[in-house]
Amino acid sequence: MTQIPFDPYQRACPSRTVLDQVADRWSVLVVGALAGGPQRFSHLARRVDGVSQKMLTQTLRGLERDGLVTRTVHAEVPPRVEYELTEAGRAAYEPLRALEGWAREHAGAVLAAREAYDARHGVA
Amino acid sequence: MTQIPFDPYQRACPSRTVLDQVADRWSVLVVGALAGGPQRFSHLARRVDGVSQKMLTQTLRGLERDGLVTRTVHAEVPPRVEYELTEAGRAAYEPLRALEGWAREHAGAVLAAREAYDARHGVA
Repeated sequence: MTQIPFDPYQRACPSRTVLDQVADRWSVLVVGALAGGPQRFSHLARRVDGVSQKMLTQTLRGLERDGLVTRTVHAEVPPRVEYELTEAGRAAYEPLRALEGWAREHAGAVLAAREAYDARHGVA
Repeated sequence: MTQIPFDPYQRACPSRTVLDQVADRWSVLVVGALAGGPQRFSHLARRVDGVSQKMLTQTLRGLERDGLVTRTVHAEVPPRVEYELTEAGRAAYEPLRALEGWAREHAGAVLAAREAYDARHGVA
């Protein structure tokens, strides 16, 4: 059986929806926050400063659904819930870390470019 | 003067908004489509199969505003408009290409994980 390779440039290829989950601001930050090892929800909420509970829940659920994160409930009182990157999640961390690094490195230039663009285009 | 480093984990840091433009499905594909050299709008619209004219315009404008893409109008009849990656855009292409590669490579596993998750959670 010949397998047609995934190609996100084709509109019908499901790899485009795979890209959607990871090419996302919150996924970049949450995957990065999990890179050091398993974490609880409350730790992630503090680490990803300003993320709403709803958005963090939604991001973790999307990552879990896609097999990038596992959610483990430890039988303690009260139950302890931990999130951890899977192998696919750790593989995604490499490009996401590089993208985050790019953003840190180029933020100054990007912000200056925005200001210049807005001045040229008469945005207040 | 001490410069505080950019940190997208901090809610007030503008690098978070810098991440937004590149951590985006359409930016991944458009930057990838421009990696080979300058292109016209019509070529990009064909290459990024299924992208709407509105979404492509919006993505190119965002990338231009952030200084990742230049838009050049060549004085011809009719005028020829070309889009090209800047140095910052070419630097962003490296992690974006790796992210696209991750999506291609892991698409099968991600789609299987989704199906299993939806079955476990009773999604039709």
